[in-house]
Amino acid sequence: MQTTRTTPSRLAKRAHYDEATIHPILDEALFCTVSFAVDGQPMAIPTAFARKGNKLYIHGSVGSHFIRTIENGAPVCISVMLADGLVLAKSAFHHSVNYRSVVIFANAEKVTDEAECMEALALITDHLIPGRWDDLRPTTASEMRKTTVLVFSLAEASAKLRAGGPSDDPDDENRPTWAGVIPLQTVRQTPVPAPYNNDTPLPDYLINPQNT
Amino acid sequence: MQTTRTTPSRLAKRAHYDEATIHPILDEALFCTVSFAVDGQPMAIPTAFARKGNKLYIHGSVGSHFIRTIENGAPVCISVMLADGLVLAKSAFHHSVNYRSVVIFANAEKVTDEAECMEALALITDHLIPGRWDDLRPTTASEMRKTTVLVFSLAEASAKLRAGGPSDDPDDENRPTWAGVIPLQTVRQTPVPAPYNNDTPLPDYLINPQNT
Repeated sequence: MQTTRTTPSRLAKRAHYDEATIHPILDEALFCTVSFAVDGQPMAIPTAFARKGNKLYIHGSVGSHFIRTIENGAPVCISVMLADGLVLAKSAFHHSVNYRSVVIFANAEKVTDEAECMEALALITDHLIPGRWDDLRPTTASEMRKTTVLVFSLAEASAKLRAGGPSDDPDDENRPTWAGVIPLQTVRQTPVPAPYNNDTPLPDYLINPQNT
Repeated sequence: MQTTRTTPSRLAKRAHYDEATIHPILDEALFCTVSFAVDGQPMAIPTAFARKGNKLYIHGSVGSHFIRTIENGAPVCISVMLADGLVLAKSAFHHSVNYRSVVIFANAEKVTDEAECMEALALITDHLIPGRWDDLRPTTASEMRKTTVLVFSLAEASAKLRAGGPSDDPDDENRPTWAGVIPLQTVRQTPVPAPYNNDTPLPDYLINPQNT
């Protein structure tokens, strides 16, 4: 939703407010950064998350300073960035980055419904490793008591994107300097078993290392 | 440096304050997230940066709301995370992430010395694309007037790391569920030339796509 604080001051043409743009970025990103302020001092924590519909879930230890600081509804800014490529122009000034980013302004709500907590943990697990949750033993009541789940509305979310090649000053275009894009990709590599894994085989959902 | 605000409330054993740990993380990361607060409302902007000694530089447009908000010394939190792997345990509860992160509490100083500004732009360019700066035409006075360079001290920086395999409850270790690590890596792919690059050859520093 476009509001004063979701409207960027620079390059507003790169901003988007539709779910069709915002949701896939959140679904592809593995981690977000949650920023909050304590007495005017900003702090930022990278963490796992998952999206369902127009909500975003994170989780943490009930004892975490971070979780305890924001669980009662303090304002937070959640940001996500996918770096797609380095954009090399013929002048330093026109170098850029291809990216897809989302910024969310929201206030945490603590999830108290047990079924919703459990579903959020499943969503966060499967967001990082699709198919994983159903392969695990059930989470115990004791484990749940140690875990806080927070939910945020995506109502005030915006995306900002850049794609494509460099744009140079016309006078520079013929300079003998290479110009173009170096694509970046996050790649999942071959899984490395734990010593106590013994000969447990890799499940289907892990057999082909996917790009994230 | 260890201070109250750089001491994590959780897993403090994972925290490090020495340059030998902090500097390589900053040098490997391509982007940081700068968090700041306006009237208690946190905001976060991902951006390029570079480190030199015990200082970190960022740059932006002189017209940027972000830059104008922090250039006079408002407190910021700069965070960086390298996601090294997904850690799969035999219970959801013990799933984790291998990461190397840095958090810096600092206040921006606007760089006014012209030579230091120019050096910072070279450092930021070469941080993303080593060797690039010397291949570019000189930055013009007009381009410099449109650019603000900010510098931050790393005095109050801390790193937090996790590496290695999963750690499961002893009762779970023999479950027939695969446990281990899925390594993650950011990879530079084959450069894609701009349409107006014509036949300008790839320079040596771009010929072997490196891992970042």
